Amino acid sequence: MRFTARTSSDGVTEQFFTLGEIPGVLWTPEGACGTRPLILLGHGGGQHKTATGIVSHARRYAAEGFAAVAIDAPNHGDRPKDEEFGRIAAEMRAGMAAGEDPGALVAGMHGYLAGQAVADWQAILNAVQRLDQVGVGPVGYHGMSMGCGLGIPLIAAEPRIRAAVLGLLGVHGLAEDAARITVPVQFLVQWNDQMVSRNQSLALFDALASTEKTLHANPGKHEDVPSFEADSSLRFFARHLS
Amino acid sequence: MRFTARTSSDGVTEQFFTLGEIPGVLWTPEGACGTRPLILLGHGGGQHKTATGIVSHARRYAAEGFAAVAIDAPNHGDRPKDEEFGRIAAEMRAGMAAGEDPGALVAGMHGYLAGQAVADWQAILNAVQRLDQVGVGPVGYHGMSMGCGLGIPLIAAEPRIRAAVLGLLGVHGLAEDAARITVPVQFLVQWNDQMVSRNQSLALFDALASTEKTLHANPGKHEDVPSFEADSSLRFFARHLS
Repeated sequence: MRFTARTSSDGVTEQFFTLGEIPGVLWTPEGACGTRPLILLGHGGGQHKTATGIVSHARRYAAEGFAAVAIDAPNHGDRPKDEEFGRIAAEMRAGMAAGEDPGALVAGMHGYLAGQAVADWQAILNAVQRLDQVGVGPVGYHGMSMGCGLGIPLIAAEPRIRAAVLGLLGVHGLAEDAARITVPVQFLVQWNDQMVSRNQSLALFDALASTEKTLHANPGKHEDVPSFEADSSLRFFARHLS
Repeated sequence: MRFTARTSSDGVTEQFFTLGEIPGVLWTPEGACGTRPLILLGHGGGQHKTATGIVSHARRYAAEGFAAVAIDAPNHGDRPKDEEFGRIAAEMRAGMAAGEDPGALVAGMHGYLAGQAVADWQAILNAVQRLDQVGVGPVGYHGMSMGCGLGIPLIAAEPRIRAAVLGLLGVHGLAEDAARITVPVQFLVQWNDQMVSRNQSLALFDALASTEKTLHANPGKHEDVPSFEADSSLRFFARHLS
């Protein structure tokens, strides 16, 4: 793990790093030492590790004593794009323009990325938990949309993740992995989501095997999650990881 | 308004009162003086003003600086039962035993009680806001199940109510009043509610005209609302009434 840049402001230290091929950012409380809960932040499709929503959640978590880490997903952000990704992305755009079900198209893309994404997160988790200011504490995962689509296979495979905030995605291609998830989940639905049908969303919530799962639905489109849900996510992780 | 008993514990003062025919309880922070937000608490069918859930919410609100008031609904608790109520209640029980839709049966009962319930709450609001330790501050309404069924006509009619926590009820008989509600609403759904169908629940949430409304769904039956929703209700009212 190679740290490349470090800044601190408002009580939060932000460190850019690379781990092998994976570029990432770690946020911790300024001057942190010792073990603390860690939140893995998965960004949305076409976004990257420092998308506005990722950074604001990460800084919020770090301000409350958590560590938070974001990485560029495969074929996203500062990572190279491969040919197959380009082909799938072009097909996805063409399919959407032709009025095909976005749920199925997006699931195809997530399926292509998930294997690498799960391996990336497991390597990151190993490396980050070796740092003095993080340590081997409880781990949460926070990801919406593609961050949910890559997070569900990760959580199904990774027993270190003990709670998750997920959402803005339907059940396409995820039912089997969702049925292997038993940790507490807070699941966000946008009631007028133009990308994800309401029924497909509710079906993904239903597919989770977790006995403690809570669904928050708000009016508005895919990108209109209200800001009070950030507070709610923080309290959810505080309840389950602290 | 005649106060009949007063006790204080854990920083909260509880005062029993009657206003005309209406028996009620007021909770305030111990030693409170001056204006504060007020929460009206509507109990469920067959319950009363000191049902466990009502008292625990009321004490929680008062401990955070709110005033809270609960009354016995018409034909409930310490109030006399009239013949027509007995007839409707018997019909409701018989219909449920015969496997009729509980939503329609319950709506008939709520329809019978709503006119009186709205008048009661308006009289209570007038009287309680004249007290020194309450005053004319912002008002919220909290009611589940029958508390929701009587609350929706009240909120539709009463501009002093500025936010509400509602739920555990379907749209039967409530669509028109719900369409007149524009204040922020937090709406609870039990995902495996044996009394209220999921579709009828979601339809009531949809019928609310509020631009800020948020739905919280949790696994379990009608009576299994998880305790963390009490924290969430408190924060909702703190956000909208403070």
